[in-house]
Amino acid sequence: MPTILGQNQYGKAENRVVKITRDGGTHHIKDLNVSVALSGDLDEVHYSGSNAHVLPTDTTKNTVFAFAKEQGIESAEQFGIALARHFVDSTEPITTARIRIEEYAWDRIGTSDGETRAAHSFVRNGGETRTAQITYDGGRLQVLSGLKGLTVLNSTDSEFWGYIKDKYTTLKEDYDRILATEVSAVWRHNWSGEERGAPAPDWQESYEETRKLMLRAFAGTYSLSLQQTLYQMGSQVIDGRPELEEIRFSMPNKHHFKVDLEPFGLKNEAADGAVYIAADRPYGLIEATVLRDGAEARIPLDMTNL
Amino acid sequence: MPTILGQNQYGKAENRVVKITRDGGTHHIKDLNVSVALSGDLDEVHYSGSNAHVLPTDTTKNTVFAFAKEQGIESAEQFGIALARHFVDSTEPITTARIRIEEYAWDRIGTSDGETRAAHSFVRNGGETRTAQITYDGGRLQVLSGLKGLTVLNSTDSEFWGYIKDKYTTLKEDYDRILATEVSAVWRHNWSGEERGAPAPDWQESYEETRKLMLRAFAGTYSLSLQQTLYQMGSQVIDGRPELEEIRFSMPNKHHFKVDLEPFGLKNEAADGAVYIAADRPYGLIEATVLRDGAEARIPLDMTNL
Amino acid sequence: MPTILGQNQYGKAENRVVKITRDGGTHHIKDLNVSVALSGDLDEVHYSGSNAHVLPTDTTKNTVFAFAKEQGIESAEQFGIALARHFVDSTEPITTARIRIEEYAWDRIGTSDGETRAAHSFVRNGGETRTAQITYDGGRLQVLSGLKGLTVLNSTDSEFWGYIKDKYTTLKEDYDRILATEVSAVWRHNWSGEERGAPAPDWQESYEETRKLMLRAFAGTYSLSLQQTLYQMGSQVIDGRPELEEIRFSMPNKHHFKVDLEPFGLKNEAADGAVYIAADRPYGLIEATVLRDGAEARIPLDMTNL
Amino acid sequence: MPTILGQNQYGKAENRVVKITRDGGTHHIKDLNVSVALSGDLDEVHYSGSNAHVLPTDTTKNTVFAFAKEQGIESAEQFGIALARHFVDSTEPITTARIRIEEYAWDRIGTSDGETRAAHSFVRNGGETRTAQITYDGGRLQVLSGLKGLTVLNSTDSEFWGYIKDKYTTLKEDYDRILATEVSAVWRHNWSGEERGAPAPDWQESYEETRKLMLRAFAGTYSLSLQQTLYQMGSQVIDGRPELEEIRFSMPNKHHFKVDLEPFGLKNEAADGAVYIAADRPYGLIEATVLRDGAEARIPLDMTNL
Repeated sequence: MPTILGQNQYGKAENRVVKITRDGGTHHIKDLNVSVALSGDLDEVHYSGSNAHVLPTDTTKNTVFAFAKEQGIESAEQFGIALARHFVDSTEPITTARIRIEEYAWDRIGTSDGETRAAHSFVRNGGETRTAQITYDGGRLQVLSGLKGLTVLNSTDSEFWGYIKDKYTTLKEDYDRILATEVSAVWRHNWSGEERGAPAPDWQESYEETRKLMLRAFAGTYSLSLQQTLYQMGSQVIDGRPELEEIRFSMPNKHHFKVDLEPFGLKNEAADGAVYIAADRPYGLIEATVLRDGAEARIPLDMTNL
Repeated sequence: MPTILGQNQYGKAENRVVKITRDGGTHHIKDLNVSVALSGDLDEVHYSGSNAHVLPTDTTKNTVFAFAKEQGIESAEQFGIALARHFVDSTEPITTARIRIEEYAWDRIGTSDGETRAAHSFVRNGGETRTAQITYDGGRLQVLSGLKGLTVLNSTDSEFWGYIKDKYTTLKEDYDRILATEVSAVWRHNWSGEERGAPAPDWQESYEETRKLMLRAFAGTYSLSLQQTLYQMGSQVIDGRPELEEIRFSMPNKHHFKVDLEPFGLKNEAADGAVYIAADRPYGLIEATVLRDGAEARIPLDMTNL
Repeated sequence: MPTILGQNQYGKAENRVVKITRDGGTHHIKDLNVSVALSGDLDEVHYSGSNAHVLPTDTTKNTVFAFAKEQGIESAEQFGIALARHFVDSTEPITTARIRIEEYAWDRIGTSDGETRAAHSFVRNGGETRTAQITYDGGRLQVLSGLKGLTVLNSTDSEFWGYIKDKYTTLKEDYDRILATEVSAVWRHNWSGEERGAPAPDWQESYEETRKLMLRAFAGTYSLSLQQTLYQMGSQVIDGRPELEEIRFSMPNKHHFKVDLEPFGLKNEAADGAVYIAADRPYGLIEATVLRDGAEARIPLDMTNL
Repeated sequence: MPTILGQNQYGKAENRVVKITRDGGTHHIKDLNVSVALSGDLDEVHYSGSNAHVLPTDTTKNTVFAFAKEQGIESAEQFGIALARHFVDSTEPITTARIRIEEYAWDRIGTSDGETRAAHSFVRNGGETRTAQITYDGGRLQVLSGLKGLTVLNSTDSEFWGYIKDKYTTLKEDYDRILATEVSAVWRHNWSGEERGAPAPDWQESYEETRKLMLRAFAGTYSLSLQQTLYQMGSQVIDGRPELEEIRFSMPNKHHFKVDLEPFGLKNEAADGAVYIAADRPYGLIEATVLRDGAEARIPLDMTNL
């Protein structure tokens, strides 16, 4: 046979599970998009179509919803760990499970001009999407947390100059520009679930503090390049969160070009408060990993398809 | 000639204008998407291709950016009014201008665990998009404000029963369901810019209070149908905001179906905190106008293409 | 009561119905997205939440799928007519029904280098989406057919000059430019189902010929403005298709800007075959109706939300 | 320093370049979306913000457009190779360049009912998007060709049964179902540009024949699982195209569920031509690589983010 099967995986993607928890009249909501990918002894289904080793993707869907009821959803990470362990531990031919989760945040609706908040009425917080990826191979767990769609902008304290000029370079140096990006980031926890007595991180606190460190580094860096800002964001996260080993960013440079208003007799200087056009395409795209010294890089490089 | 020209309009759509205003070291940001549509004495360009009456769409784009500098952007409504008046008043063949604006909100990045906020660093607030539409015919102004993408959910206090049952009806009555929708709304101000001495509304306050009234009506209505909730939202807005004449809603019913977990020996009752699947398509779609008694309905009916 | 209810409608949107018809081993496929909107005596559901006059949107969904089986889908128009009549004629409080349909085309997969085509294997034709809208008020039918997403481009035979120049005009006149647009069009049939003995149009032939006339008018018009091209497309359709009364277009000007390559010592003239950048936003947007002389304009103006 | 920099790359993404070639009155069009990613000696820009080793992303954009003029675009692969070589060979600190390209196809507009085709008027072929990825490290070239958005459907000759049943399994076995998927595929050429006298493949022919082999394998496989169909598609490609070493697929199972019409007294059997609902989410997702025996797997595993 001149062809063989390489890496393969299958599962049910984008299970949109919403769990309401009632605490008397006060409700809590968890809103996830869960994708399951399983690997293992699956050659035969490819070669002959025998499904003897195949747990149907429909079953993996049912499992997601049943687990939400049986075990609850404390966090995306905890939920993904429970699912990943289940698929590998309970299905003989499955040797690896990868669970990817997107989480959408909801805020309580304010019901007065004070701080009163509704007990069971929510408005979706349209900010960034929180992500998690849990991989389990029967021994170790790998937990990646992250976010995407976190759009940030500095309206000053950004410069860009001193770069290589070749025959195709026309860009003018800029000593006061807008720096804006839509952050996608994935960070890896050092906890693997294997060490005796090593408790899992507090996933919620870890997420909130990591997000805070990224935002503050973005705001606090006087930037000579988006790469520099990215590195500051990454190193301040790694410095500040001992539970993390590495972080990878994909950061498009959301260009805001100063509009040329001279033809209309108008000055348009950053220093006076300028008018910009927010451009769509093309855009700079900066991607990099920042690691704790000595750590191994394990986060996949491709966070985008472009 | 057996065919004639009917209603027509043209302009530049989706001008993405960002204006930074500097107040010492503190910056303010306005982030708009502005679309221009002009009508008038334009038969000839259709019949013969003569552009003698055509102000190029490129010029309308330039005007948007130049006005952002010359006049500033106090609000989407003020900015749209200035643009609409300009096109009609300064270009002979143009008799009507319609300006549509989307506005994206930004929050300041928090720089400490207290209340300290960055002076020129922002994170995009991913919530609803604010909208405005200004139409000017040389005399009256019509100002529609609105929003889209405001997603809300009540996890209880919603029932649905007592409906018509025909031969195609299989739906079970439900006495405790999730009610969720993504609100699109457009409301019309009674101010037309014509009355001597009648000041324009405070657009910012009007928007904020209208949004608040909608959210509170959504949270506060014990709902027997999404139509009832919609009407409560509309009538509480009209009651509470004397500057408004009518409001129109387009509200998809974002279905959250309770998952059948009985095959797995699990109960899944709303009262205990249930697991739902958030469905994509199809979805109920409820659209209606609510008016002040005696007002004329002028908001266009079609807010969606489906 | 200070507020009243205005126009309102409700129904199930985006029912994704696929019907396979078997003719021996040869299969045929119809792939539709059907949206139902019903109006009538529905005040009470808004005022008090009483659903006594409400046919559930879930029932309208069931009806769509059951009708696909009971009546088959000969064309989107025929299917929409059957549905619209059913809802009004069989449900007392419902007085108007509007059915909107998107249709996706599939081609048979070629199974040899000749003309042999698979009997039950299809590849989706990713071209334009065909649309239909049927409205029935218990008496007349109004049938709008149409399409969207038909992207066309002339690489020459397009000029733009002789326009108004005001103080914000910087655009250079152009005597050889690319003209590209993504056509959305809706056309109205004069058949209303009321005239005794007047047979319905052949919807399939009418669609194909109308599309052909539009494409040929686009290709065949030496264009001095996109408006002129639009009018030629409309008038050649109305001239050529006696069953149609009016047609409305929404045509964004998909700008292809010649890139300035002079800084690199390169000429970039249209006459030599030029390099263009395909721009996203902003874009010109041209909308107009073309009517048969004497016909009434009844197609809604808003085909887009920007 | 407790943190270090890992893998990193930067460049300009989504350069939308359109090239018209004139051959007398007959024009040809190439329509690409080109993304550049560069790696090399770039630590310093991350650590200190020094741009001394940075070729601006704006320059990479200019280079794309200038090369389209200087060298023309024979194919996406040839164009990507020229760009990749240029960036590495002409910019000292850059050691690796990766060029990703999407290509959009256009057909000539038919101008008569015969076979006459317009010389410079085109309609966009909305089918699949063709892709290419070229990586150059100063020595070897790696060329991946591919496509995405190729949606195919078999209306019979698909079964699914004999799978694992655990406590969460409710799926009924099916002996006549619709099999539909939206194919994303990437295949790797064995040509690396290093072998003396080894000519590059005919990229156009290679693409067309590979696509044909995939379609025919999809249509011709009586399927017991989507995995089996995938493997047949891959192995028939590898068997039929000696210039290829491996191919990777990402194939969502676009579920078409037979609608339960029994409540309405209707049978809905596949054998009679059934009615299906085309579901959105969740969906099965099948991914696998097929290789020539002895070849190394080098195509990245992640072709999707879910």
